[in-house]
Parts: sequence; C-alpha cells; structure tokens
Amino acid sequence: MIKIKDIKFSVKKYEYKKPFHITNSVRTEAFNVEVELITSNGIISKAEASPSFRVCGENSDTVMSVADKARGVLAGKDIKRYGNVFNDLKSSVDSPSLKAALEFSILEALCKESGIKVWNFLGGVKKEIETDKTVVISNIKDMVLEAANIKKEGFKILKIKVGENVDKDIEIMAEIYKKTKGMKYIVDANTGYTPKQAVYFAKKLYSRGIDISVYEQPVDRNDIKGLRYVRFKSPYPVAADESVKTIDDAVNLIKKEACDFINIKIMKMGFSNALSIIQLARANDIKLMIGCMSESSLGIKQSVHLACGLGCFDFCDLDSHLLLNEKRNRGEFIQNKNIIKIC
Amino acid sequence: MIKIKDIKFSVKKYEYKKPFHITNSVRTEAFNVEVELITSNGIISKAEASPSFRVCGENSDTVMSVADKARGVLAGKDIKRYGNVFNDLKSSVDSPSLKAALEFSILEALCKESGIKVWNFLGGVKKEIETDKTVVISNIKDMVLEAANIKKEGFKILKIKVGENVDKDIEIMAEIYKKTKGMKYIVDANTGYTPKQAVYFAKKLYSRGIDISVYEQPVDRNDIKGLRYVRFKSPYPVAADESVKTIDDAVNLIKKEACDFINIKIMKMGFSNALSIIQLARANDIKLMIGCMSESSLGIKQSVHLACGLGCFDFCDLDSHLLLNEKRNRGEFIQNKNIIKIC
Repeated sequence: MIKIKDIKFSVKKYEYKKPFHITNSVRTEAFNVEVELITSNGIISKAEASPSFRVCGENSDTVMSVADKARGVLAGKDIKRYGNVFNDLKSSVDSPSLKAALEFSILEALCKESGIKVWNFLGGVKKEIETDKTVVISNIKDMVLEAANIKKEGFKILKIKVGENVDKDIEIMAEIYKKTKGMKYIVDANTGYTPKQAVYFAKKLYSRGIDISVYEQPVDRNDIKGLRYVRFKSPYPVAADESVKTIDDAVNLIKKEACDFINIKIMKMGFSNALSIIQLARANDIKLMIGCMSESSLGIKQSVHLACGLGCFDFCDLDSHLLLNEKRNRGEFIQNKNIIKIC
Repeated sequence: MIKIKDIKFSVKKYEYKKPFHITNSVRTEAFNVEVELITSNGIISKAEASPSFRVCGENSDTVMSVADKARGVLAGKDIKRYGNVFNDLKSSVDSPSLKAALEFSILEALCKESGIKVWNFLGGVKKEIETDKTVVISNIKDMVLEAANIKKEGFKILKIKVGENVDKDIEIMAEIYKKTKGMKYIVDANTGYTPKQAVYFAKKLYSRGIDISVYEQPVDRNDIKGLRYVRFKSPYPVAADESVKTIDDAVNLIKKEACDFINIKIMKMGFSNALSIIQLARANDIKLMIGCMSESSLGIKQSVHLACGLGCFDFCDLDSHLLLNEKRNRGEFIQNKNIIKIC
C-alpha cells in the first residue's frame, strides 16, 4: 500500500510571448494550477492543470476552489488501487483539468515507485513525437511572417487559427501557402464558422490546390449536425475538438459519424477519460490528434507521455509551452525544434 | 530495456471431472498450451492459452504450429515497450488464445520487474471477485442434483447450460428453480435456439416467476438481428458471447443495439483487445461479464487479474478450473467457495 499523504496546490502565472488570439478570444496570460502529490513513502510527483474557461467553463480560481475537496477525497488512498482513486475523484470533483493533473500525478507516483516511466506504463510505443506550431489570428502580414518563421525554425506542420472572417481567412491561407509550401496544415476555426461558411472556406482552398491535413472544429461545439455536414461536404478530414469533452460526447459523435478525427486534450477530459475516448475512437476507426490548452512544459509532459506511450496520434499539437515565456523546460523532455523526446 | 530472451511452449492435458456437455459439444478433456516467458534479466512468467475450436477454430495443435513464429516475433523485444510488442504479435500471429497468454505473460514480467501485481497495474479496483459455477447439459435428474450441490457448496450464482431442447430446458429450469431458490441464474444456450425459440423459452420462465440475471448467446453467433430480436422481445438481459470475438464484432453489436451484456473472454480476443472491448462497452453503457474456456487455475489467474484490476464485471464466470481435475491450484489466488481472492 502506498498512500497519498498530501497534495499541494499553487497557481502559476505565465505570459504569452504574443497575444494568443483565436476565434472570439485573446489571451496574454495563462494561470495554471500546479499540483505536488506526496506519498506516504516519500515519492513526490508534480503535475499541472491548465483550465480553459472558453472550453470547459473553469479557471484557476474555480480549480483552486475545489482543491481542498480533492485533497480530502484523495488523502490516505492507495495509489496501487488507482482505479478506485480515479473513480472517487470522478464522482466528487468536477474539474477536468484538475482531474488530468491529479490522475497523471498518481500514475507518475506509481511509476516512480515501480522504476518505470509513465510512457512505458502506457505501452512505450514511441520514444519521440513531432509537434506542430501555431500561427494565431492577426493581420495578414504578421500571420504570413509568423508562418514563414515557424517553417524556418524547422517545423513541418503548421497550425493556423482562423474563424473570425472567412474571406480574410481564405486570403491568409493562400498567402501562407505561398511562403510555406511543403508543410502540412492543421486549420483550426475554433467554432467560428457556420456550416456553410466552413464548406465555402474548404472548397475555396481546395480549388487553389491547397491541402489541409486536419480541419479542426469548423462549427459551433453543439452543432453536431453541422459538423457532420462539413465532414461530408468538404474535401478535408474534419476534427472535433470543442465538441468532445466527455465519453458521451465521443459516443454521440461516432454514432452520428460527425468527424474524421477526435482531438484528445487531457485538460478537457481528464487523463483516464482521455484513455477511454482513445480506445473508443480507435475501435471505431476514428483518427486521433492530441492537443493542449495553455500548459507550460510541466503540463505538456503529461500529454507527451500519453502520446509516446500509446503512439496512436496522427498529429500532435503540443506547442503551448513554446508560446509561453518560461524560465526553463521543466517537462523532462528534450525539445529539438519540432521533435519532442522523453529523457 | 528488458528483452524477451526465450519462450517455452508445452501442451498440458486436463480431464474434466464430468463430461463438459453444452449445445452440440461434449468434451472430456482439455488441451491447453502453457507459455513460459523468460527475460534477459531472469524474470520468468508463466501463462496459459486455452484454445476453443468451437468458438475460434483453434486447438492446441494449431496453437503449437504458430509457437515458433510467435517466439521469433517476440525474441529480443523490450517488454517496457509492450505496446509495440502487442502490435507485432497482432499483425503476425493469428491465435487469440496464444495472444492472450503471451500478452499476459509480458505484462506480468513487466509487473514483476516493477514490484507490482498485474491487477494493480490494471487499476487495483477489487481485491476479490465472486464466480458462478456451471451445470452442464445432462438428464433432468442429474442437472437438478448438480444445481442443488452447487448451492450446497456455497455458490450464489448458478450458470445453467441449455440450448439443445427448448421444452426440456424449460422443465429443467423449473425444477432447478425449486431446489435453488435465492440463487442468481445465468442461462447459456451457446447459440442453440432460433430467435423465436429463445423468446418462447424466456417468456415461459418469466410466466413462472423465474428471474434470469443474464441470458447468454441464445442464438447463432452470426445472427445479430436474431440476438437483437431476443433482446427486445424477452424480459431478461441478453449477453453476446460467441457473437463477439473481435473489436469489430463489438462495434457492430453496439451499433445494432443487439445485446445488454458482452461476455469478455481473453481466450477469444487476446488480452489487449479484451481491454479495448471493455472500454468500448463501458463507454456505450453495455454491461460486462467475464468468462472462460477450459483454463486451468494457471489460465484463470489471467482473467482474475483482469477482473480484479478493472472491477467492471457484473458477473464473473470463472469456474473452468473447478470443473477440471488439477493436482493443485497454480493460479496464485485463494478460492474460498464462490470467492476468488488474489494472494
């Protein structure tokens, strides 16, 4: 028996290097909640919750408001029986990002006790993964410059935020394409388009010979029919992101055949539910990508272990730590341009 | 890195205490394949494949015929990267029972190296489980006597094999009910009925006030419409057993809403696919039971770890070792009547 002795929570503020502008949202700072889990035999595991108010209606204040309850639920519990601990947490604490951090910290503590790494515990499929890097919404000139810089930095996959102005977005994509030919594109409208706008956007780009690897969340999160419409009317694979936060969301999307990809983010699902959704998606031949909220390197580590352990993600969008000012990388992984390798 | 150094395979013969008579099949012996996996650092893990010719078209001879290939695929592989090893095995060896044994032995070796038990690795939800015990097909007198004896032995859940003669089966159930009131019943027709016979059977028992907890595989394995018909026309929860051997089978059954329960048997699915099907079923609110083929205590151990680790099975039908002559329990669990507890 390895009991959870204590958990410490603290809010950390990070500044974005540039304002993080996506559809209907501009952020200059991120407030994450750090978790330090201490076991009865002295194991310490650090993790991070990066709450998203836009997607999940939570922020660092709401997370901290349930921290005492979470500590109470977990104190004294045996991490060797983590299935029960996760169940207790699920039934008592309603914060997906905190669940992600706590579940990861419990698994990491068990792995530290066992002398293996979390990615090995999960299957050990890939030693390293490739991430994209993101161009946020701005004026055309700045977005094209940023895209060109990301290419110069050595990234092969470009994520482009669109969704606020479809005609401007088409123009931007055309200009970015000129400067970054050879890259793969993930285009993310963050719910910004109507279904018809979304198809219009896709068809215009397609007619210009631009390929898009993943067309993320073109329409409103609750418009599953609209998502399905875009999926079947546009030439690009469509990913559900904001539309899938729970296992039931995933079941419903699969039933309705509304998407080609599911974007797994542990901060909107928790860690163990993410594992369930991954299995569900794979069984149903739904492709997978993994994304992030505003995690620092400490939080990105969690998704890196998941991605390397399972090796099931066609695309990894794990770049939030690259967009934040951080003194040092605390993720225990090596970032070599676009490649993330677990130490 | 912990490499697989060698794997030894051997066929073991077990005699049934009584002929194991189910629909269209009588067995007096079981031939299982034992697996001994040895790692580069001297860890030894023993496991067992119990092939079913009736369900999966394999027997100990066909399993042994792919043993060398399996050894070749696995030799030198790192068990810390078991996800890859499982993938390699899946793509090269087409024996579900051998995959179950090998996958379990790999996980057990990793757990031995890590100083934890497999059930803890899987979540550690339950320290013990309750199993049923089975009454096989025979004449009415013997079946009723056997049922009464099982009740006397201390079992609370009775599994009754039916399916060869519906009117005789109804009479048997009525007689068994008289002698075993208070027990729960799992009735297994092993594909023996037509859909209309299956509903007739269920309605007759229902009208006599007999409740059945699980009505297993009433109809032909390929008759998914028939299974659905029985599900919606009979008053008891219907389980798919022979109808679900693969992840695709499970997806299809769920899509067609053809069953209330899925019977997980690692010998028809392999261990890792069983885990996937479990997640798929849970996400879709399908209930779960766990069953067995002709495993000795060594093989039953594998399903005990799965059942205790996940704690997700409403019913455990893990009694095959109780029906075989075995010199001693090699499962590293304590069997106290109906309760199985991991040592």
